[in-house]
Amino acid sequence: MTPDTTEIKAAPAQSDTPAGPAAGTANPLLVEVTRGAMTESRHRAALAVVDSDGNVVISAGDIEQPVYARSAIKSLQAIAMVESGAAEAFGVSQAELAMACASHSGEPRHVETAEAWLARIGCGVDDLECGPQLPGYEPALITLLASGRLPTRAHNNCSGKHCGFLTLARHMGVETAGYRLYEHPVQQRILGMLEGMTGLDLGAAPRGVDGCGIPVIGIPLGNIALAMSRLGVPDDQPEARQAACRQIRRAVAAEPFMVGGSGRFDTRVMELTGERALIKTGAEGVYCACFPALGLGAALKVDDGAGRAAEILMGRLLRRLDILSEEQAKKLGGVLQAPVHNRAGLAVGEVRPLAGIPF
Amino acid sequence: MTPDTTEIKAAPAQSDTPAGPAAGTANPLLVEVTRGAMTESRHRAALAVVDSDGNVVISAGDIEQPVYARSAIKSLQAIAMVESGAAEAFGVSQAELAMACASHSGEPRHVETAEAWLARIGCGVDDLECGPQLPGYEPALITLLASGRLPTRAHNNCSGKHCGFLTLARHMGVETAGYRLYEHPVQQRILGMLEGMTGLDLGAAPRGVDGCGIPVIGIPLGNIALAMSRLGVPDDQPEARQAACRQIRRAVAAEPFMVGGSGRFDTRVMELTGERALIKTGAEGVYCACFPALGLGAALKVDDGAGRAAEILMGRLLRRLDILSEEQAKKLGGVLQAPVHNRAGLAVGEVRPLAGIPF
Repeated sequence: MTPDTTEIKAAPAQSDTPAGPAAGTANPLLVEVTRGAMTESRHRAALAVVDSDGNVVISAGDIEQPVYARSAIKSLQAIAMVESGAAEAFGVSQAELAMACASHSGEPRHVETAEAWLARIGCGVDDLECGPQLPGYEPALITLLASGRLPTRAHNNCSGKHCGFLTLARHMGVETAGYRLYEHPVQQRILGMLEGMTGLDLGAAPRGVDGCGIPVIGIPLGNIALAMSRLGVPDDQPEARQAACRQIRRAVAAEPFMVGGSGRFDTRVMELTGERALIKTGAEGVYCACFPALGLGAALKVDDGAGRAAEILMGRLLRRLDILSEEQAKKLGGVLQAPVHNRAGLAVGEVRPLAGIPF
Repeated sequence: MTPDTTEIKAAPAQSDTPAGPAAGTANPLLVEVTRGAMTESRHRAALAVVDSDGNVVISAGDIEQPVYARSAIKSLQAIAMVESGAAEAFGVSQAELAMACASHSGEPRHVETAEAWLARIGCGVDDLECGPQLPGYEPALITLLASGRLPTRAHNNCSGKHCGFLTLARHMGVETAGYRLYEHPVQQRILGMLEGMTGLDLGAAPRGVDGCGIPVIGIPLGNIALAMSRLGVPDDQPEARQAACRQIRRAVAAEPFMVGGSGRFDTRVMELTGERALIKTGAEGVYCACFPALGLGAALKVDDGAGRAAEILMGRLLRRLDILSEEQAKKLGGVLQAPVHNRAGLAVGEVRPLAGIPF
């Protein structure tokens, strides 16, 4: 694996009119979905694997395009709560810290953990500024509704991240209401930390609002990968941040269930890899990863936003970097090539990397 | 709208090794998904609008690529039940016939209609060879589970189509078990009818298994559009088929709720258009339409399988052909440009046709 000559710039020229990738950009076809004798659908994507010095080790497609990393960088966002001392001051547990990095399935342990955490910092479920959401794990959904209850904001897949924001607001001694907004001190603190991790001035970066109400910031894909590599090798970051990165990596490795849930890709992979990999899915086909022992970070974005393709690409990368052994990959079954099932449970096709994929 | 010189061939050369579109094929970017200041995701697609003589009136991308039309041609599959006399023999109502053409949301009226239909033909829910499925309409899902019940096969979005297959099997006097299989007389009858409508010998076409267990047949996109135009103008088809096409168009126009459900795109559009348009969504980003008064049929397929893009393209086409007036489009709100909402219900972006779209 020889680093090529490309290097992620710490501060590329900022455009006056921030925008997405040009309409003409055609990232390569990397994933296909087969059904019977035919390829039914296909997905294009860009991917960057970068070391903590900014050297591009593997790339596909346009890695300079700005991307909203969505939930895939929750582990970065959690840094602010830890490095500020808020996590220690409020006795945030490993399970809670892992849940601050989660897009969880709304299973009972997730919901109960959020509720207990909120109570401990003097807040309630109504202080969460994300909307309610039905549990993503079907048995949990059925159990909840069959008991005559409806989901609350604690069931929202982002509730742990929001608990983290509230914890930081409490510790900073600022008003908790509005913590989701770009101008709020909590989000500004996170923005500043992200600038340190990505090596970019993000004040003029394109932005929008995430599904759970918080700001999303457009960041070139390669710089997201750089930040993920620094999560594993934060040597050039302030000391408190270095400790925070270690603590987050350990928490996620110790509590992979809290980051996702029953049967979820993130959870199943990290149950096997431990601290060798911190991986995290994000909406609209984003996936990020940190491989501390290799000194690498990764970020990928499927052009069309399909999560099924993002998982397949992450699985492929985990094999390529030998983070998952062949035996582990076999144990995971659908990681490298996911069967497409019909509603009767029969395999009728598969989601798989295309031949000729550059990694 | 001048027909161009292209014409859909009734019988193009069949390849010995059926396969999907070549990996190099790049259909044009037609839809973008914005969030705040940036385009977050984008979708490529192919589209064909064809008259009943096979003249291509509008096209984008590769319309010769074989596509599984999935649920978007349920109205064609229903022809076999009607032209055979099965529908009349078993007193199939307009609501039931519309449901044979449906991907419904599993609401009480859908489920009750399927159950009553099954009882009348001497079958039960267990004779349906599709799996059970949670209702797609959230209030119906919550009501069902909160009452302590679980979904049955009658809740499957395809249950009406399967009732139609069972009705045909009963009328043909053949074994009902296995009606979903390619070799069963019911599926062979439908295949023969599809050959007449598409103008193709489909015996060697690539095939697979649909989500509900029935065969899917790879058919060039332009020929699917041709079949949809013939559903509206079946003059060159046998007399019984001509009557069947009329009956299906009338049933769907009279009962648009049965084809989809509360708030569904198909249902909402057809409540306004009546017999001017029969439109139907299919899995993996397919949409088909029949415009009898214009003598046109349409078929489109989003490369990556995204239904959100397929809806936007169909909405755009409905405006382009003036099937929907400007006033009707306004009434429908999200048809031409669908807002992206976060979980708190705020609009944070939109799904919209790209500038420069060729229709």
